[in-house]
Amino acid sequence: MTDQNVYVLGHKSPDTDSICSAIVYAFFKKKELKENVIPARAGELNDETKYVLKKFGVESPISVSSAKGKRLILVDHNEIAQMLEDINEAEEVFEVVDHHRLADLQTSKPILMRLEPVGSTCTILTEMFLYHKTELPKNIAGLLLSGILSDTIIFKSPTTTQRDKDMAEQLGKILGIDITTYGIEMKKAGADFAGRPLSYSLTKDKKVFTLGNTKLAIAQFELVDIAEVAQKRKEILSEMEKMRKQEGVSLFIFMATDIIKEGTELFVVGENAQKIIKDVFKKDLKEGSVWIDGMLSRKKQAVPPLEQYFAKK
Amino acid sequence: MTDQNVYVLGHKSPDTDSICSAIVYAFFKKKELKENVIPARAGELNDETKYVLKKFGVESPISVSSAKGKRLILVDHNEIAQMLEDINEAEEVFEVVDHHRLADLQTSKPILMRLEPVGSTCTILTEMFLYHKTELPKNIAGLLLSGILSDTIIFKSPTTTQRDKDMAEQLGKILGIDITTYGIEMKKAGADFAGRPLSYSLTKDKKVFTLGNTKLAIAQFELVDIAEVAQKRKEILSEMEKMRKQEGVSLFIFMATDIIKEGTELFVVGENAQKIIKDVFKKDLKEGSVWIDGMLSRKKQAVPPLEQYFAKK
Repeated sequence: MTDQNVYVLGHKSPDTDSICSAIVYAFFKKKELKENVIPARAGELNDETKYVLKKFGVESPISVSSAKGKRLILVDHNEIAQMLEDINEAEEVFEVVDHHRLADLQTSKPILMRLEPVGSTCTILTEMFLYHKTELPKNIAGLLLSGILSDTIIFKSPTTTQRDKDMAEQLGKILGIDITTYGIEMKKAGADFAGRPLSYSLTKDKKVFTLGNTKLAIAQFELVDIAEVAQKRKEILSEMEKMRKQEGVSLFIFMATDIIKEGTELFVVGENAQKIIKDVFKKDLKEGSVWIDGMLSRKKQAVPPLEQYFAKK
Repeated sequence: MTDQNVYVLGHKSPDTDSICSAIVYAFFKKKELKENVIPARAGELNDETKYVLKKFGVESPISVSSAKGKRLILVDHNEIAQMLEDINEAEEVFEVVDHHRLADLQTSKPILMRLEPVGSTCTILTEMFLYHKTELPKNIAGLLLSGILSDTIIFKSPTTTQRDKDMAEQLGKILGIDITTYGIEMKKAGADFAGRPLSYSLTKDKKVFTLGNTKLAIAQFELVDIAEVAQKRKEILSEMEKMRKQEGVSLFIFMATDIIKEGTELFVVGENAQKIIKDVFKKDLKEGSVWIDGMLSRKKQAVPPLEQYFAKK
């Protein structure tokens, strides 16, 4: 039997933008659709997102582990490897709102799809609220601001556009808070690398990509002191190799991103890791990792050169 | 060397919506982008579209036969089989505006993509003009109205939404014309089946689809007297079989759609044609064709059941 609800769902290993988008868009669509619209998540909340939901007094979306028979709206992703395993058994996917590359989802019927090359899905949603003059309660404004600041790394990421800044500023006014101060507070709440087990840090923001015929995983952890990472080098690499095999991917990349120094220590394990990183990023892995100055964005600085490399394979 | 222009391009075998979208969206983007934006086409103009361009005094988009090195905006399609053969050699596709199913195009970078489940791409573009309060000269309004009326078959197609009607009405006011009268005039200009060679009628609106692992072509011709078709049955079927082989598709479907009687004589040649049509449409082909009452839309009434059928293969 088909589930009569509509679920608004972000990607696996959800981040703040993905969770906030699901909650906010469900709130938005409830006013338009007759059906019951339910925000959902396809994984555990990370520390940063927990902080955000607590801050604005909003409940966590419900956890869903199967798409079977469900009617879905997808936010913040359009890549099958980032969806629930049984996504093909969904009753239908009838909407997508996202800001990533156009990937491999297909539908049989025309759908509503809105991809915009901006810094966060929450930027697109904020513009929708303003365009439709939809009432914007403070907690919803808080989630939108959090999604924007989280995904743009407080506007430091090269994915940042003027639209992200404009929307964040408007939301800051609604909330009466200083957005940079709040952003740093939020980022710090999620940046505890030393105090958390590796199993958490390596999976909290892990995405799987199918590039050409190659399946790879790229995890990212944002922190404020890269030295914490160097101390755990051996454990990191051995844990990564274990996860690579479990996941069945040929390459596992871990981006330890220092948002203060504005760069990434890139850890890589898997088939031809050394050669691939040399070819793609012109850098030599030393003891399994290399510092890439200025690299903050997986989407804009890691995925495109890798995609171009594997597309030719 | 990379071509510095931006080309706005519709699908192969272009129809009125595809051609008008390319011209209108190039006009719209010229105001926003610094680059030179050029409307283009990937095939010959059909009779209906020629009538429209003449009526509103607009030049034909330039013909392009290669995507190599070009920066492209795609309108009215997002399916690789409907693009230029060398689409993978384009410098980039950075925008898509369309109203079809989400298909198989992929990009390495985030793009602007706007898919809406409405009756025509021109409906989406009209909404953009109104939203941005962009100046709408009469000839541009005329092209937009033509795209809407053409793709929705003057609102008779089941793809028609209230938004198509609303936009057409506003455009009719700008032009000071009766939209239904104009629509019939326009459709008649393109409906000359008896007077045109089969090589024209079978290719003027032919699209190739990759459904599951099956490649098939579906051509459509709208006319006002289905009797003209019955007289050419044998030639139609033999020409279709020839084209099927040339095209390298396993199935070739020709929809002869009577817009007055509101139904389609469906001609089918290829592997297991009889069985597939029986399974998908619950109809028996007789001498290679069958009348399906109420069928007007390829996108909404032919492609989805075929996609579901072949997805399971």
